[in-house]
Amino acid sequence: MIKTLLNHRSIRKYLPDSINEATINNILTAGIRASNTGNMQVYSIIVSSKNETKQKLWEVHFKQDMILQAPLLITFCADFNRFVKWCKLRKAEPGYDNFLSFITAATDALLVAQNVALAAEHCGLGICYLGTTTYNAGKIIEILNIPKGVVPITSLVIGYPDEKPELTDRLPPEAVIHYETYHDYSSDDIDKYYFDKENSSLAKDLLITNKKETLAQIFTDNRYTHKDNVFFSKSFLDVIKEQGFMNNE
Amino acid sequence: MIKTLLNHRSIRKYLPDSINEATINNILTAGIRASNTGNMQVYSIIVSSKNETKQKLWEVHFKQDMILQAPLLITFCADFNRFVKWCKLRKAEPGYDNFLSFITAATDALLVAQNVALAAEHCGLGICYLGTTTYNAGKIIEILNIPKGVVPITSLVIGYPDEKPELTDRLPPEAVIHYETYHDYSSDDIDKYYFDKENSSLAKDLLITNKKETLAQIFTDNRYTHKDNVFFSKSFLDVIKEQGFMNNE
Repeated sequence: MIKTLLNHRSIRKYLPDSINEATINNILTAGIRASNTGNMQVYSIIVSSKNETKQKLWEVHFKQDMILQAPLLITFCADFNRFVKWCKLRKAEPGYDNFLSFITAATDALLVAQNVALAAEHCGLGICYLGTTTYNAGKIIEILNIPKGVVPITSLVIGYPDEKPELTDRLPPEAVIHYETYHDYSSDDIDKYYFDKENSSLAKDLLITNKKETLAQIFTDNRYTHKDNVFFSKSFLDVIKEQGFMNNE
Repeated sequence: MIKTLLNHRSIRKYLPDSINEATINNILTAGIRASNTGNMQVYSIIVSSKNETKQKLWEVHFKQDMILQAPLLITFCADFNRFVKWCKLRKAEPGYDNFLSFITAATDALLVAQNVALAAEHCGLGICYLGTTTYNAGKIIEILNIPKGVVPITSLVIGYPDEKPELTDRLPPEAVIHYETYHDYSSDDIDKYYFDKENSSLAKDLLITNKKETLAQIFTDNRYTHKDNVFFSKSFLDVIKEQGFMNNE
């Protein structure tokens, strides 16, 4: 178990081998055992495997090849639709069309996703999360016929690995763990905690390839820019509103 | 591994036994290996164990006794503070003061939390998530000296179990899993999927105790009410804004 947790690497090249149904069921069953809020299970799991569906999702996930290579693309959604339908059929007046309910349901969905990811890795499969899910949630909603009350929050590509990447680096534990209360970072702390990352051969190669002076600039100027973040903030907030989670009065 | 996933139950009664440092370190190290966005690690883990701190947190987590019983209370936060400080010290202009960045960081924090929960369970410890983290995030920020750019998103109580609860029920897998695309629920589907839950002895006891006609009414009228959800939606949105994640222009 701990070994599986410690050995995680995201896989971005997959073999075309399909995954047998029993394995898929085991992985999903393990997913559903995750903690959830008040046992309401306010999430849905959409398992897409047909080429036609995956091709459409590939378009909105920035055309990453791994989506077409791997046999499964699973979309995890915050979902109050099912629970609200149940309430309405049972003389109960649901009050779940607000932002807190979205956060609650998104949390449920993300814990399920991580269980599914770990169960898959335990079965010898590789996984990769797609952050692009929130970027293009509106288009995913169209492709997957997702109704009101449901918002895609993350996706997992799952399949047999066709690469063996090295473990990626992490900041030293003391950089992200605080004891008792939060201890804010001095400039010296930042220098110390980012030293290894900034002095790795990976970082040095990236600076040359991207023609940048610092590694941080590769994040701010190329990978996660202000412009993109603002654009996708607006579009994701619009999706949350359109799906019925912004009635906060 | 799969066994640990399948055997999860939330523990709400704890022995006073402390957890040795090596075990805590192993659990947290396993947490930090979780997938995260662009390897930015935009989360923080705050490990509180002193009675003084736990007493304050107990107040804002609705005075649940388990918080005082268990040796550890870990608060998981969406954290762009560290990353932004790094950017500013490296001639890079961060654009992470927006809603998408909050969602990105909250996602990172939740995947870490689930890894920590599973690693703890693997070590024989019990865990319980505290949904009250988002309800009173503002007060938690005060207690834990949390700076701007950081938002608490969930918490875990961790300790040695003093109870052996039964596995809680789950809806049948077909109720939460959709194949290929989303298949919306008919009234018949809802009746079928909720049948076991509604006809359990637990449900029947709850109806008597709460003097309600349907199980759904216990959720809408007692546990997760419209009034509370609206109140906490506003307060959590205020926290997100105050912590600097709502500059979406």
